[in-house]
Amino acid sequence: MKIALLGCGTVGGGVLRLLARNGARYMARCGVPLEVRRVLVRDTDKPRVDELDRGKLTTDASLVLDDPEVDIFVEVMGGEDFAGECVERAIKSGRSVVTANKALLAKRGPALFELASRRGVDLAFEAAVGGGIPVVRALRDSFASDEVLELVGILNGTSNYILTRMTEDGCSFDDALAEAQARGYAEADPSLDVDGHDAAQKLVLLAMLAFGARPPYPAMTVEGIRGLERVDVELAAQLGYSVKHLVVGRAHGAGVELRAHPTLVRRSSVLSNISLAQNAILVEGRALGPCLFTGRGAGDMPTAVSVVADILDVARSVVAGVPGLVTAASDLAEKPLVPAEETTLRYYVRLTVSDQPGVMAKVAGAFAGENVSLSQIIQSELANDAARVVIVTHAAREGSVRRALAQLEREVVDGGARPLLAAPPRFLRIEDR
Amino acid sequence: MKIALLGCGTVGGGVLRLLARNGARYMARCGVPLEVRRVLVRDTDKPRVDELDRGKLTTDASLVLDDPEVDIFVEVMGGEDFAGECVERAIKSGRSVVTANKALLAKRGPALFELASRRGVDLAFEAAVGGGIPVVRALRDSFASDEVLELVGILNGTSNYILTRMTEDGCSFDDALAEAQARGYAEADPSLDVDGHDAAQKLVLLAMLAFGARPPYPAMTVEGIRGLERVDVELAAQLGYSVKHLVVGRAHGAGVELRAHPTLVRRSSVLSNISLAQNAILVEGRALGPCLFTGRGAGDMPTAVSVVADILDVARSVVAGVPGLVTAASDLAEKPLVPAEETTLRYYVRLTVSDQPGVMAKVAGAFAGENVSLSQIIQSELANDAARVVIVTHAAREGSVRRALAQLEREVVDGGARPLLAAPPRFLRIEDR
Repeated sequence: MKIALLGCGTVGGGVLRLLARNGARYMARCGVPLEVRRVLVRDTDKPRVDELDRGKLTTDASLVLDDPEVDIFVEVMGGEDFAGECVERAIKSGRSVVTANKALLAKRGPALFELASRRGVDLAFEAAVGGGIPVVRALRDSFASDEVLELVGILNGTSNYILTRMTEDGCSFDDALAEAQARGYAEADPSLDVDGHDAAQKLVLLAMLAFGARPPYPAMTVEGIRGLERVDVELAAQLGYSVKHLVVGRAHGAGVELRAHPTLVRRSSVLSNISLAQNAILVEGRALGPCLFTGRGAGDMPTAVSVVADILDVARSVVAGVPGLVTAASDLAEKPLVPAEETTLRYYVRLTVSDQPGVMAKVAGAFAGENVSLSQIIQSELANDAARVVIVTHAAREGSVRRALAQLEREVVDGGARPLLAAPPRFLRIEDR
Repeated sequence: MKIALLGCGTVGGGVLRLLARNGARYMARCGVPLEVRRVLVRDTDKPRVDELDRGKLTTDASLVLDDPEVDIFVEVMGGEDFAGECVERAIKSGRSVVTANKALLAKRGPALFELASRRGVDLAFEAAVGGGIPVVRALRDSFASDEVLELVGILNGTSNYILTRMTEDGCSFDDALAEAQARGYAEADPSLDVDGHDAAQKLVLLAMLAFGARPPYPAMTVEGIRGLERVDVELAAQLGYSVKHLVVGRAHGAGVELRAHPTLVRRSSVLSNISLAQNAILVEGRALGPCLFTGRGAGDMPTAVSVVADILDVARSVVAGVPGLVTAASDLAEKPLVPAEETTLRYYVRLTVSDQPGVMAKVAGAFAGENVSLSQIIQSELANDAARVVIVTHAAREGSVRRALAQLEREVVDGGARPLLAAPPRFLRIEDR
């Protein structure tokens, strides 16, 4: 069974290390030895893992992709354009592909899966979501017999690391981010992580598996933790909540609810206790009930373990003469996204208001006017004649809450001399489970 | 794809319900419709789920097993002898089997897997361990690329329910058991659960998958929670621990450590927070690190979901013309069991001693004589001139701790008039993770 590695960074190096370490076991599992035939890189001079036979390195993509001896292409280079071109060429040539590339699949997954299905080859991607946690396989194979009602996940280790440090140690966002970067969790450009896009891409992949929902979902709510203030983390803690960056997917009749954003979760909940760079995915099946998977969501070796698990599965199906059996595309359908304004949750709202008589009546009135009923209200004094009002709503439509806040932003006091709100309102969603 | 159900109790009824509810989805997954052709039962008059076509019921095993039209046999009757005979006949006739029967597989698994492998058919058993938690598939497929170092599980929901009630609500063992029975968690004869055998059978199955360890393991430590006293649960809580019934499997060079027993785990640990009838399995991979799976470990629908997930996998491999591909036997080897006396852990010991001068010196001396060093000692007065001594050891060999206790049981006080110990010593293992 001949493998070509497309890319040889940290994950590719981990794959080579596992193949060297466990070769005999893998042969027992597949019936044939796995051999790395070529390794495509951009720079053949760069230092690589010792397990690499440097004679297999090449910078010539065609030499690799057009090699008829290769049975399985393993795409671990990342990026969308060139990686996408390679994956597409590999599939079109009738060979199976294993990839860890969530950005590529979140964007072009449906077309690539359909191409693989037509060519009768596999396109496996366990490593694209949740690092070493086998959630792709679980949704594809184990939940095939059930109906997934919802999934809730902590899928971005960098964000979870930062939030854990902010919550447990009182760090600021900037300090916690710098620390995550120093520890190698966050990239030099952390925007994919802290703006929520990495988690959102993973959610899109999970939603394909769980709900058969065909991306793209450009209108999906995607908010990151950048700009989250420590005061909100502290107030949430006083109310009995932790702030976590969650992805949430729910089946809604013919449609789906998909969102990725910072969220208040009860401190007693299992998700609240997922700390630092851990990942977790809670899947609720109609018949199965809730099932939780937790583990290392990133890192070279956990991700490589998932890549190689896919290689083994695909290799077995190639040996059996039924390539394409492992990942055979399930039907994807364009399931409409539930609009954000129709999402029904409880909400945390923090207002900074002018401390004057009648202010609270205006605040309460704005919510009442939108039929949003309030569960908790905590008012406290701030400096400069301002007051802080923290509100936890009962379950309400997001559109109603936003309209109430927009109304408050228009209100004035002192006969029109000053706005009611001394600062923009802060707003966080609550998941009660 | 024609299916015969062997047995139609709660799990079999759940399978019929899922097949009726999700037929279209299952057909999309397999490419062919799944049809229940025959249902073998002992009593055709008993009430069954509405989804059953009673015309398919029969009490004639040969009519079912010799039916050449059946592609997959689904054994959900339980028991060892007759179920084992049916499974064996089905495999010998070249048909694949899906079973939920942990007792059968823990006893005769290796021979049945080898038979299935020789006949080129599947023998799938996701439902035999952890109910709806897909741990069998995870160990078989996802961890195939890694090396499992250890697994620690809470696999008996009845025991966990009882322990949760004893810990959190101060119930006695007897009251908590009666309650578990009233709620349908525990059988009328609860001995398989509360004596640890159910969990031990599941551990044996997981050890086959995780370590390639070939049962039987008659010398394995199997202790249940029957006879656990509330005082030990309370003292454990004071020391910062919960008592949980754990299964533990560890690779030890060429051998394996396998045990099932009540265990002290830190209250801050994830396993301590698995409550009531939940199950959990923590798998530690060399490259992957720790990965935790939690969910409903029992119940008709979760178990049926696992049975049907297996049916779908096996059906796909039959349709593809490669029956036997799903579960193809990995090599099992007779891995020697690490003897219980060589297990190295920390231990909790409770002694009831005569309250006399010099007693503590004897207690400390007995442990020192076996090179067992002590981490915590708490002595408190009891009635009747007795004292309670609670000891937590540092890591020590179990044989050494047992010899120290045996020594103390031989000690006398009052010039030989009375034994040092007023009651047998109590002894619990601690897992620090």
